[in-house]
Amino acid sequence: MKNNIEEYMKRIDDVILSHLDGGHVSGTITEAGRYSIKSGGKRFRPYLLFAALDAFSTPLERGLKTAGAIEMIHTYSLIHDDLPAMDDDDLRRGNPTNHKVYGEAAAILAGDNLLTEAFQLIAGDEQLDPATRLEVIRIISNSAGHNGMIGGQMLDIEAENREISFEELEKIHKYKTGRLISAPVHTALVIAGAENHTASHLLSFSEYLGIIFQIRDDILDVTGDVKVTGKNTGSDARKDKVTYVSTFGLEGAKERMEQKVSLAEAELDAVSGTIDVTELKNVLNRFAIRDY
Amino acid sequence: MKNNIEEYMKRIDDVILSHLDGGHVSGTITEAGRYSIKSGGKRFRPYLLFAALDAFSTPLERGLKTAGAIEMIHTYSLIHDDLPAMDDDDLRRGNPTNHKVYGEAAAILAGDNLLTEAFQLIAGDEQLDPATRLEVIRIISNSAGHNGMIGGQMLDIEAENREISFEELEKIHKYKTGRLISAPVHTALVIAGAENHTASHLLSFSEYLGIIFQIRDDILDVTGDVKVTGKNTGSDARKDKVTYVSTFGLEGAKERMEQKVSLAEAELDAVSGTIDVTELKNVLNRFAIRDY
Repeated sequence: MKNNIEEYMKRIDDVILSHLDGGHVSGTITEAGRYSIKSGGKRFRPYLLFAALDAFSTPLERGLKTAGAIEMIHTYSLIHDDLPAMDDDDLRRGNPTNHKVYGEAAAILAGDNLLTEAFQLIAGDEQLDPATRLEVIRIISNSAGHNGMIGGQMLDIEAENREISFEELEKIHKYKTGRLISAPVHTALVIAGAENHTASHLLSFSEYLGIIFQIRDDILDVTGDVKVTGKNTGSDARKDKVTYVSTFGLEGAKERMEQKVSLAEAELDAVSGTIDVTELKNVLNRFAIRDY
Repeated sequence: MKNNIEEYMKRIDDVILSHLDGGHVSGTITEAGRYSIKSGGKRFRPYLLFAALDAFSTPLERGLKTAGAIEMIHTYSLIHDDLPAMDDDDLRRGNPTNHKVYGEAAAILAGDNLLTEAFQLIAGDEQLDPATRLEVIRIISNSAGHNGMIGGQMLDIEAENREISFEELEKIHKYKTGRLISAPVHTALVIAGAENHTASHLLSFSEYLGIIFQIRDDILDVTGDVKVTGKNTGSDARKDKVTYVSTFGLEGAKERMEQKVSLAEAELDAVSGTIDVTELKNVLNRFAIRDY
């Protein structure tokens, strides 16, 4: 019997929210954290983690808290990213950003808290033996820290309002968004106990996925409908950000995205004889190609 | 042969700085992190951890990375605390605060990074078996998160510019500073494998120490010399903060501090037959009582 991913996608919010509800010192911290978790998002990273576990017929229960922790880290990064000192955004997923509702101080602390509690969630995950939990913590902190997301965010901020090369742009994406998109696949491989050859193809797949995701984001910033994406369009252009679209034009960006989709599919095809990549192909369809 | 704590105190900075130097994506993130680590501080928490390990004759090497991680978390909390949206301080330990040197965005990210990399440091600590590392991560994330430091920081911010009761004040301190002062003792007990009775007395000791530390901080805000403390004096009064001094007066605050010191000493005396508490008594002398 195959895993039911939809069921686990419904449980992701519960896992995170019930963990946040365990905070009994400051109601504001709990509430501000809940607000950003509940304000939606596609839960792309949890879905990807579940799809990767499914490929190995590993029970999704074993990845539930890891998926929740990665989503918490993703959410903290959005809260901090939206702050006036960073991207200064008022709207996120169609709702006022965290600091617009709770103030800057609470938003900074709520972000800090989601990051801190993400590690608490994994450390207490009884579904995984201690060595596996540690490896998961290692992968996630590596993906989120100076050699991952934070490194990329800093590069991104320093690239604003100046000319950057395409190589620089790719480096920013690789770290800023790419590493935390690889993390669900990487942690799933550890949880599932994947052997090296398969793991290496799926990691390459996840790296292409990160690039695809970013190109799509750049495209949606131009073509997207605020009612669907929940984001104001044109914000990259207003900030003079170099994007795939500003570099290659809309058609050029789409072309590049399709090239990467083919490469990602080829990685899945390379292992489709040993594992069932159906759900991972669905990820590509559901999150990467769809052009809303 | 007894441990040489001074030797390990010298190694704390190396452990943290060499970990930060492992960040190869953004020079700014590395530099901003180094800046706040190198700008001094008493390294009270590492010293406390070493003193607690020493009581059990446990090699300090086994606590080196945990001590570094706790100091990184303490430092990140100072960086975020100093931000304009929080305490808005320009001076810390006699130097310009992180955001004054690197800008707000970099300071937010450098703080996020110290927090993230603290967990990476512990997760990779080969001195400790996986189960111990996990327990250490659990204690530290608990002490730093919504039921610890962050919860207390939020209460503290919400208490500004309004009347608060003494009970509220104590609750703020218990979480804001107390939990991350208990953490070095708590993690040391786990690393040393302390039995319950001893552990319980030392945990009580660490809780008194947290309160002592806070009262002393309130006193120094009034009596301290900026050249020695590195902080502008009188900032609590300027912000209308309720402190031990504003509540009980300078003499009343000192009296309360001495009461807590006696209680802390009594906890050490209760276990001095089974372990060697010499260094823990030194902590009290070195950091808590000294009135500079």
